[in-house]
Amino acid sequence: MQNFVFHNPTKIVFGRSTIPSIGMEAAVFGNRALLVYGQNSIKKNGVFEQVTASLAKAGIMFVEHSGVCSNPLLSHVRAGIAKVREHDLQVIVAVGGGSVIDAAKAIAAGSLADGDVWDFFSGKQVIKAALPITTVLTLAATGSEMNASMVVTNDETQEKFGFKSPFLFPKVSILDPETTFTVPPNYTAYGAADAIAHVLEAYMSTKDEDVPVQMDFMEGLIRNAMQSCERCLVNPSDFGGRAALMWTATLALNGLTVAGLGQTAFPMHMIEHSLSALYNVPHGAGLSVVMSGWLRWRLKQDANRIARLGRHVFGLTGDSADADLAEQTVNALRNWFSTVGCPVTLAELNIPTGDINKIAENALALAQLWQLDEYTQERIEEVLAYCQ
Amino acid sequence: MQNFVFHNPTKIVFGRSTIPSIGMEAAVFGNRALLVYGQNSIKKNGVFEQVTASLAKAGIMFVEHSGVCSNPLLSHVRAGIAKVREHDLQVIVAVGGGSVIDAAKAIAAGSLADGDVWDFFSGKQVIKAALPITTVLTLAATGSEMNASMVVTNDETQEKFGFKSPFLFPKVSILDPETTFTVPPNYTAYGAADAIAHVLEAYMSTKDEDVPVQMDFMEGLIRNAMQSCERCLVNPSDFGGRAALMWTATLALNGLTVAGLGQTAFPMHMIEHSLSALYNVPHGAGLSVVMSGWLRWRLKQDANRIARLGRHVFGLTGDSADADLAEQTVNALRNWFSTVGCPVTLAELNIPTGDINKIAENALALAQLWQLDEYTQERIEEVLAYCQ
Repeated sequence: MQNFVFHNPTKIVFGRSTIPSIGMEAAVFGNRALLVYGQNSIKKNGVFEQVTASLAKAGIMFVEHSGVCSNPLLSHVRAGIAKVREHDLQVIVAVGGGSVIDAAKAIAAGSLADGDVWDFFSGKQVIKAALPITTVLTLAATGSEMNASMVVTNDETQEKFGFKSPFLFPKVSILDPETTFTVPPNYTAYGAADAIAHVLEAYMSTKDEDVPVQMDFMEGLIRNAMQSCERCLVNPSDFGGRAALMWTATLALNGLTVAGLGQTAFPMHMIEHSLSALYNVPHGAGLSVVMSGWLRWRLKQDANRIARLGRHVFGLTGDSADADLAEQTVNALRNWFSTVGCPVTLAELNIPTGDINKIAENALALAQLWQLDEYTQERIEEVLAYCQ
Repeated sequence: MQNFVFHNPTKIVFGRSTIPSIGMEAAVFGNRALLVYGQNSIKKNGVFEQVTASLAKAGIMFVEHSGVCSNPLLSHVRAGIAKVREHDLQVIVAVGGGSVIDAAKAIAAGSLADGDVWDFFSGKQVIKAALPITTVLTLAATGSEMNASMVVTNDETQEKFGFKSPFLFPKVSILDPETTFTVPPNYTAYGAADAIAHVLEAYMSTKDEDVPVQMDFMEGLIRNAMQSCERCLVNPSDFGGRAALMWTATLALNGLTVAGLGQTAFPMHMIEHSLSALYNVPHGAGLSVVMSGWLRWRLKQDANRIARLGRHVFGLTGDSADADLAEQTVNALRNWFSTVGCPVTLAELNIPTGDINKIAENALALAQLWQLDEYTQERIEEVLAYCQ
C-alpha cells in the first residue's frame, strides 16, 4: 500500500424526505444564497418547490441561476460568478446532477478569485478559497456531491478541463433516492457507467498490486453499480435499487477507492472529455464507449488484472489462461453495457470514425495537462480505433 | 436502505515515515499538549522518540500522561483531566492503540465539562465540547482513530461503559503500519478479531435486508481482516499485510459499514465488556470467545444470514440448506480463530463457567443502558453457555 492522506469532510444526509433540511443546513453558512440548477426537471418532480420552501423557511434569500447544461459551460459559470458578486451572496445551493454541482463548484471558486476562474483550470492560478457549497443531488452518477473535483467546458476553446481542491468539498450533500425515480432509463444507465468508469480507472491504473482492501471494495462497487442499475431499469421506482445506485456512485469517487493506490490516472476520462467537448454527448454514454474500447486495447498488457475483474465481478470461472478470461471479461462488460442501453461504439454516438484524428488532437491537450505522457496522438488514435 | 447521516471529518495520514508530521498537525490546535500513552512499548520501538522530537520541532510544550492500560480506567482518565486543567493544555496527542485513544477521548471530553466525566457515560450529562484530539496509532484493532466513540472502565463500580459524540472524532490520525511490526502474534490476532467483531455486529443486526452495497463492503472487510492477519502472523514485518490489517480495522468502525443499515446493535460487545471489566481479558480475545458462542446461539434465527457469510467470506458452496451452511460457517470462523491463536471458550480465558451468572448480571446493566431489551439475564446466560 502506498502512503496517502484521506480527508473527506462532506456531510451526507441520505434518504427519504431529507430535502426539507437543505435550508437549515445552508443557513449555517449564510442567509444569501445562489440557487444553481439545470433545466426544468426539478420543477416537474417537485424538488424545486421543496428546496425553495425550505430555504424560505430558514430565512435564506436566494438568487436563481438556472440553465446549467450537461457538460457545464464556462460562460454560464462566469454569469453565476457575476450574480454572486452583484448580490453579495454567501453560500451556493446546487440542486441537480453532477453537471450542476460541478458548475456550482466552479462558481464557488471563481467568486472569491482575483483573476478569471478559467485560470484555475489552465493551471495559471491556484485556488485559495471558495464559497461554501451545499447540494441536493438528483442523479446517481458523478460522485461530485462528495468530492473536491469538477469539470467545466470552455465554450470558446472547446476544452473540457477540470481541477480539484479541498476548498471544493461540498459542506453538506442531501441524497434522496426518490428524486431519481423520474430519471429515464438511458440516463440511469449512463450514471451507472460513470460510476463504473470512476472505479475502473483506479482499478486499472494502480501500479501497486498489494492493495487487497481497495481491490475488494472496488469490485463490490462495480457489482453494485451493475446490479442496482438493472433493478432501476426493471422498476424505476424501486427505492432500494435507486438508493444502492446513488450510494455506490457517491462511494465510487469520494477518495476511498484510490486511498493507498499511489498515483492513479484517468485516461478513459481524458478521451471521453474530448467526445463530450466536441459532440456534447452525455458523459456516461461517452464513457461506456471509451471503456469498451480502452479495455480491449489494454488486453495484452493488463490480462491479469482484467481477468481478475472477470472472476470477481462477472463470476467467470474455469482454468482458462488469464488472456482468455480477460477477453471474456471485456466482452461481458461490453455486452452488459449494450443490455442496459449504453452505447459501445462511436457510431452509436453518431460520431464519424473519420473524426478520430480530430478527437485525438483534442484529447492530447488534456493528456499533456494531466501528464499522461504515454498517451501520444498515435496511441489515443489507437484507443479510438478500438471504439469503433 | 434506511435514512442516514454520514459525516466523518477525521483526517487520516497513512503510511511509512508519517509520524514526524504529528507536531505540525497538532500545532494547528495549540502549542500546549497532553501526551497520552500506555506502557513502555512506544519507547522500545522508537515511536515515542519520533513523536516527542516532532512536537518539540513544532514548538509544542507537552505534559506526559502515561500508563493507560488495556481497558482504560476512569481513575486514570480523571488524573489526565487534572493535568489538562493544571497546565491549561489545548490539545491531546494520543500515541498508542484503541485504549490510549479511548482514554484520550474521555480526557478531551472531561476537560471541558462542568461536572464529572463519568456523567457522560452514565447518561446524566450531555457533552457540549471537547479538546481537539490528534493520534498516532500503534495497533490495528478498535477503529477509535477514525470514529467518535470510546469505552472506559469505572474501576470503582467495575462497569465498562462508553459513549459517542461528534466532538470526539480525532482531528488527525497518523497510521504508520510499521509501528505494528512489533505487535506480538496474539495481539495481532486479537486486533483482527476486534475488527471482525465490529463488522459482524452490524452485519448480523441490520433489520434491513436490502443493503447490498454495505453487505458487500462488510464481507470484503472480514475477508481482508482474516487474510491480512494471516500474512502478519507468517511475517510480522510484512508491510503490505500490516497496512491492509490497519486500514481494514479503521474502515470496520468509521461509520461506513453501518450507514444505511438503520438501528444496529452491539450485543457481542455488550457481553464482552463484562468479561474485560471483571477479568481484564484483552478485548479482542474476549470478543473471539463471545462471537464464537453468540453466532452458534443465533444459528436457528439467523441461518440465512450466517449462510451468506459462509458463502461470501469462507467460500462455502454447494446446494446444502442454509441451516447446514450456517453451521459450517460458525465452525469455520471458530476454527479460524483457533488457528490464529484467538480463544474460543471461556475456559481458554481462565474464566470459570460457574461465573456465568455473575457475568450475565454485569452485562445486564449494559443491556439496559443500550436498550437491548431482548437480552434478559436468562438470555445472556444462554449465550454464555454457548461460549463454553
